[in-house]
Amino acid sequence: MRKVLILNGPNLNRLGTREPEVYGRDSLDDIAAMLHEAAALLGLDIDLRQSNHEGHLIDWLHEAADTDAAAVILNAGGLTHTSVALRDAIAAVPTPVIEVHLSNPASREPFRHKSLISGVCVGSISGFGARSYLLALDAAARL
Amino acid sequence: MRKVLILNGPNLNRLGTREPEVYGRDSLDDIAAMLHEAAALLGLDIDLRQSNHEGHLIDWLHEAADTDAAAVILNAGGLTHTSVALRDAIAAVPTPVIEVHLSNPASREPFRHKSLISGVCVGSISGFGARSYLLALDAAARL
Amino acid sequence: MRKVLILNGPNLNRLGTREPEVYGRDSLDDIAAMLHEAAALLGLDIDLRQSNHEGHLIDWLHEAADTDAAAVILNAGGLTHTSVALRDAIAAVPTPVIEVHLSNPASREPFRHKSLISGVCVGSISGFGARSYLLALDAAARL
Amino acid sequence: MRKVLILNGPNLNRLGTREPEVYGRDSLDDIAAMLHEAAALLGLDIDLRQSNHEGHLIDWLHEAADTDAAAVILNAGGLTHTSVALRDAIAAVPTPVIEVHLSNPASREPFRHKSLISGVCVGSISGFGARSYLLALDAAARL
Amino acid sequence: MRKVLILNGPNLNRLGTREPEVYGRDSLDDIAAMLHEAAALLGLDIDLRQSNHEGHLIDWLHEAADTDAAAVILNAGGLTHTSVALRDAIAAVPTPVIEVHLSNPASREPFRHKSLISGVCVGSISGFGARSYLLALDAAARL
Amino acid sequence: MRKVLILNGPNLNRLGTREPEVYGRDSLDDIAAMLHEAAALLGLDIDLRQSNHEGHLIDWLHEAADTDAAAVILNAGGLTHTSVALRDAIAAVPTPVIEVHLSNPASREPFRHKSLISGVCVGSISGFGARSYLLALDAAARL
Amino acid sequence: MRKVLILNGPNLNRLGTREPEVYGRDSLDDIAAMLHEAAALLGLDIDLRQSNHEGHLIDWLHEAADTDAAAVILNAGGLTHTSVALRDAIAAVPTPVIEVHLSNPASREPFRHKSLISGVCVGSISGFGARSYLLALDAAARL
Amino acid sequence: MRKVLILNGPNLNRLGTREPEVYGRDSLDDIAAMLHEAAALLGLDIDLRQSNHEGHLIDWLHEAADTDAAAVILNAGGLTHTSVALRDAIAAVPTPVIEVHLSNPASREPFRHKSLISGVCVGSISGFGARSYLLALDAAARL
Amino acid sequence: MRKVLILNGPNLNRLGTREPEVYGRDSLDDIAAMLHEAAALLGLDIDLRQSNHEGHLIDWLHEAADTDAAAVILNAGGLTHTSVALRDAIAAVPTPVIEVHLSNPASREPFRHKSLISGVCVGSISGFGARSYLLALDAAARL
Amino acid sequence: MRKVLILNGPNLNRLGTREPEVYGRDSLDDIAAMLHEAAALLGLDIDLRQSNHEGHLIDWLHEAADTDAAAVILNAGGLTHTSVALRDAIAAVPTPVIEVHLSNPASREPFRHKSLISGVCVGSISGFGARSYLLALDAAARL
Amino acid sequence: MRKVLILNGPNLNRLGTREPEVYGRDSLDDIAAMLHEAAALLGLDIDLRQSNHEGHLIDWLHEAADTDAAAVILNAGGLTHTSVALRDAIAAVPTPVIEVHLSNPASREPFRHKSLISGVCVGSISGFGARSYLLALDAAARL
Amino acid sequence: MRKVLILNGPNLNRLGTREPEVYGRDSLDDIAAMLHEAAALLGLDIDLRQSNHEGHLIDWLHEAADTDAAAVILNAGGLTHTSVALRDAIAAVPTPVIEVHLSNPASREPFRHKSLISGVCVGSISGFGARSYLLALDAAARL
Repeated sequence: MRKVLILNGPNLNRLGTREPEVYGRDSLDDIAAMLHEAAALLGLDIDLRQSNHEGHLIDWLHEAADTDAAAVILNAGGLTHTSVALRDAIAAVPTPVIEVHLSNPASREPFRHKSLISGVCVGSISGFGARSYLLALDAAARL
Repeated sequence: MRKVLILNGPNLNRLGTREPEVYGRDSLDDIAAMLHEAAALLGLDIDLRQSNHEGHLIDWLHEAADTDAAAVILNAGGLTHTSVALRDAIAAVPTPVIEVHLSNPASREPFRHKSLISGVCVGSISGFGARSYLLALDAAARL
Repeated sequence: MRKVLILNGPNLNRLGTREPEVYGRDSLDDIAAMLHEAAALLGLDIDLRQSNHEGHLIDWLHEAADTDAAAVILNAGGLTHTSVALRDAIAAVPTPVIEVHLSNPASREPFRHKSLISGVCVGSISGFGARSYLLALDAAARL
Repeated sequence: MRKVLILNGPNLNRLGTREPEVYGRDSLDDIAAMLHEAAALLGLDIDLRQSNHEGHLIDWLHEAADTDAAAVILNAGGLTHTSVALRDAIAAVPTPVIEVHLSNPASREPFRHKSLISGVCVGSISGFGARSYLLALDAAARL
Repeated sequence: MRKVLILNGPNLNRLGTREPEVYGRDSLDDIAAMLHEAAALLGLDIDLRQSNHEGHLIDWLHEAADTDAAAVILNAGGLTHTSVALRDAIAAVPTPVIEVHLSNPASREPFRHKSLISGVCVGSISGFGARSYLLALDAAARL
Repeated sequence: MRKVLILNGPNLNRLGTREPEVYGRDSLDDIAAMLHEAAALLGLDIDLRQSNHEGHLIDWLHEAADTDAAAVILNAGGLTHTSVALRDAIAAVPTPVIEVHLSNPASREPFRHKSLISGVCVGSISGFGARSYLLALDAAARL
Repeated sequence: MRKVLILNGPNLNRLGTREPEVYGRDSLDDIAAMLHEAAALLGLDIDLRQSNHEGHLIDWLHEAADTDAAAVILNAGGLTHTSVALRDAIAAVPTPVIEVHLSNPASREPFRHKSLISGVCVGSISGFGARSYLLALDAAARL
Repeated sequence: MRKVLILNGPNLNRLGTREPEVYGRDSLDDIAAMLHEAAALLGLDIDLRQSNHEGHLIDWLHEAADTDAAAVILNAGGLTHTSVALRDAIAAVPTPVIEVHLSNPASREPFRHKSLISGVCVGSISGFGARSYLLALDAAARL
Repeated sequence: MRKVLILNGPNLNRLGTREPEVYGRDSLDDIAAMLHEAAALLGLDIDLRQSNHEGHLIDWLHEAADTDAAAVILNAGGLTHTSVALRDAIAAVPTPVIEVHLSNPASREPFRHKSLISGVCVGSISGFGARSYLLALDAAARL
Repeated sequence: MRKVLILNGPNLNRLGTREPEVYGRDSLDDIAAMLHEAAALLGLDIDLRQSNHEGHLIDWLHEAADTDAAAVILNAGGLTHTSVALRDAIAAVPTPVIEVHLSNPASREPFRHKSLISGVCVGSISGFGARSYLLALDAAARL
Repeated sequence: MRKVLILNGPNLNRLGTREPEVYGRDSLDDIAAMLHEAAALLGLDIDLRQSNHEGHLIDWLHEAADTDAAAVILNAGGLTHTSVALRDAIAAVPTPVIEVHLSNPASREPFRHKSLISGVCVGSISGFGARSYLLALDAAARL
Repeated sequence: MRKVLILNGPNLNRLGTREPEVYGRDSLDDIAAMLHEAAALLGLDIDLRQSNHEGHLIDWLHEAADTDAAAVILNAGGLTHTSVALRDAIAAVPTPVIEVHLSNPASREPFRHKSLISGVCVGSISGFGARSYLLALDAAARL
């Protein structure tokens, strides 16, 4: 069964309670449940993780390559806009990486308008709330 | 039956022959065929149009509002990066608009890194080639 | 009788329904009615047009020159901030052009703070809602 | 009778002698005379003042609020482009403020293209020479 | 006989009357006459068109490819500096495109110093007035 | 008894009535009363002044040096972001100057994000409303 | 008893030995001792921590919310200027956060002049050396 | 006898005590004495003034024009870099104005590298300490 | 017989061996031969020179004026983008100067997108390889 | 025996497999072996570490100071361009730090052209592949 | 007798014929004659040189140091705005260097507003035409 | 025997006397002596040259290619930051070029932070004083 890693960066563990008018009311556990259901239908094995540490996200991207994951779905949170190291990690692995965002960064503060990681991801999906992940899973299933 | 307008901006009529290493080998007709098939399954009525004129795209966005379309899927091509008028048209209609791109603008020239329209769209999907449209249609079905 | 062209750019046909908290509740027809009434008092013949096409606005500016219009009142909408071609059209005709805006662009998004056309217009009036047009007509009557 | 303060900033006391090709040949007294005549017709009581001191303009804006002026017409001169304090004063009073300029700053040096005060004024009128004031008075009469 | 399209953008229909100190006193018809004469000598078939609509220029560039034109000579006017869509159209066709300008944009306003289309044209010729077209025709004859 | 000058710049005389959602509902007199009470406990003699004139603030900074004030607490209002002259005055006197703000400039408009005077003050306190002054007085007492 | 977390970012464990002309000669333990003494008087329970890992600071901010801390005092060190993730963490918790700095960043290198976190903190105190913490504690006691 | 006004802006009354390593140890009175001596030899009548108020400097520039002064020597201090109003005053009078600085602004902070007034002065002299004034007087004598 | 100087700047002596995919395979001698042939037909006397020294190019531009050359054709190489002195030399002589480039700088690195000399040349021709010189010679023949 | 720490930042554990056309085919273990051999000849004791966590690199820099290491050789990977905290750590320790890069960042993307850490390192060596480390070790041996 | 070198950069050999409305009608020989006369009165020995080569100016600055010149007066022409090497030469010699310009660069094109050399010169004099040199000589006599 | 050219740009002939706190106390002759000694051990033939003329450095780079030099070591001095022509010369020759600097440009003025030549050199070494050259020679020996 093909494996898809779903990696979540800083503060995504606060989903549901954090600025719900921006990020919606689903917790990360709610999203995980939806994704597990969808993955079963798509014949995918998913592994959802979250960390507030840039280093862990990089470690996990490396692990994705070493364990031949079919794809990575990455919501890098605030690191999206600041981390060259994360960008390098994506470029350093052969695994295709899909960028997701719950909200639409383009309609928020100017410092969220530039993504350092978009340029090395196969594609980006943003603004659909929890559905952004489901669309990304669908895309991953057909890469 | 709910209607979805799929609007395509400048040069998308050249798909298939235009820089295929960037935009893929599917023509706009090929994509239309795929979308009609998918729309049937989703119970949606789609109407795919293309124009090289900014003005037509704006006219059609107004028409979407006037005909109570459920959603608009918009690939604005090069206008994405330059047209405040198109942005205003999106903001001027209550119809939700989804931004799509075949390629990933973030991995191309710097002048493609900023989208003037993202900020007023409900969401954005880019980089998955013709599949970007299918994912957008799926998203539109569940708005 | 001296003729004044009143040209309206993209999305101004949506006035009244479009973001009324920004642009007010008068439709373009309401404004036309007010302007016809005022023009009659000022002894002016007005011709109000709207298009979502940059090219039509340029064509009409040329026509203003060819038909010896006394003045043009121009609300270029979103093209205000992006169109060098429109600026060139204003500079290319001897007819004096007055820039109007319903809202005050300076209190909105940064990309609305720069007008490409102001520098070649005889004057600018903005922020007074539908009255901006009436003030411009008054100014045109005395050029 | 409703009162309108007409405040003039630095160097406007030199009108008529100062760069007449830019600012016209009317002195500030000439403009005051025209405005008094127009105000009489509009049923307004005007009070025209000039100072080269930023602080006086701020004091007078406060005074406008304290004396329940119906509106302020403000030609801030060179302070338009540099004074956050003046902007704050306009925002600090409930009195509506109308920005006027004799010349069209957009067709002059780049440092005149940005107005710090436009964003907090109800509207702006520029480029019509002494008539800019008359149009502003007309606008003030109907606020 | 090899065909060369000579496409002219916004406001070039005003040549001869428009700012003659910048653009010279030849009308577009005068230039067309000169070009027909020169084309006859070079054994080329030329087709000179003008439009104030960005969309027409894009349509015509596509047509050049579909009709196997030998080259396109393009004076994009004010669109030179603002149109990514036009740039994309040039890149989307295999036909070589030569950029021409009557005046020298580098000696004019700063917003004319950057050409969005130069980078995808085979070459650029500017500053020689109507002769810029003749030089471009000569270059096109030998591509 | 050690003296502390508390200098307030443009528009701070409007406190209490001016944008209370930003600056709070205390008037400058209310703040003065609080500060006198606190100063008595700290064994300090305070002298609170306000002016809308940059020049007066500079004069008073010089006076602080000439009268051997122990410290100056300065809320420069909008001059914070624009006045090199005020910065020079702070650098020109040996008296330590503490910068205070009622609101947090960093969460407001971009032009409020840079302070020209911070770099020559001993320290800065902002965002605590009227308490910013009390904290500054406490800091001044222990310089 | 109300709890206040005092979080210290990268390199603050080197206080006392690190560039003492910039940061003073007090070690973080010295500061902790002062703060415990002051907290006792204010009836507060403090918990001072330090980490060189951005992730830990984010974890601790979340913990502050989960344990109903009354406030967080945060010296983010070099992360102040680079971490959107930390900014997001502050915005993601209801706990009020006070920014402190020992030195005055505004008088140091240009890359220290912008704080990414100021805009989401309730207030900022900088430049008073170890006293910056004491003033912040005092402010926290009265939030 | 020809009159030369020597105008000094903010903080120049602190000369001698203010940052002597930057501005030298001469007081403004010392400089005045030197200038009176030199003026006598040159057959000039000088009038040296200082104010911390931008408005006074503007008033005095107007006065220079009204009293037919032969020249103005202006050390605008910190206003050099921020005052469009002062620039406008210089442009508004026919009297030639010479810019002087004691120190060399180009070797100081970046915000001192741009002079808003240089462009409208007949010439500039900076970096020679008190001698800058003497050289300017010499230049004024021969205008 | 009218003389045309053809001046070549740094590294153009390496043509043919230097990055032939960018600059073509013709050596400067090959180009000189082509130009002599073309000049004979046009009745022009040409003098082609090359130097890696900015100073020589300036000396030669002066010489062109002193020897009444009809025109200068200038390929300034890398100095195009950096030399104000060369720009000044072109502006300092009455001889018309035509800018040429073998490649199209606009399709290369960003630092090649700005030409310091274009603004003072009568016209520019770039991107046609060795033919750029022939077109320039043709233009020079008809100045 | 003098100790040299050789610290490697994010993604350097992927050397050999990661973009070998950029970073070469040597793994970090290969480089470690070369360095141990070279260190033996130079009489140095080396300790090579790698982490994807910024915090570990900072911890190790502190440890270098606490264990009196003779020098640190630091390849900070993507953190080079984004981490003020790492810069502060280098400035916070007396141990000399040498910056190394396998590739030449200056010939890569613009965001790699600025190093935040260069300014506080004793020297920098980049572009020589694995030999960059050997040259740095040689430099460290003679500090 | 104390020696002063007067060094002139690119294009200053064209004085008198070059753009006389900018640079005046005196040739460099005329200026030399005036300076010799003035130098005799000041008891100075002057040596005026001109070159279009940056390298010669640098050589001569070194020579000034090696021959114990009392001062250098430098009009670097267009190199003023572009040459770090010339700046380094000035900083590399103990001889005081005075910057002069005939015209006022601040009132010309923006690329002339920044001087790379001002920051390392003892002082600058500009805008007085040939008199700029005389004032500089006077300043040099009293250094 | 393989030859290495060691080229030194403007002002490096002043080494030893020029700002010794920045560049060290070794003269260029001292460095040459060290390099000859080291080259003998490495079996290399070195040729060290210096010029203050950009043109000579370019000529010598061409000569390196024509005489089949094994490598060039280049300290371009101030030209590092300004010369596109020098960059082009490096790119125009097949000889590998190594950039060296005595000081660390990154810890000096901002205009020294960007190297125009780094991007076309095989590698860069800076900050080790005279040892930078020795490390570069070592690197050249193993290219």
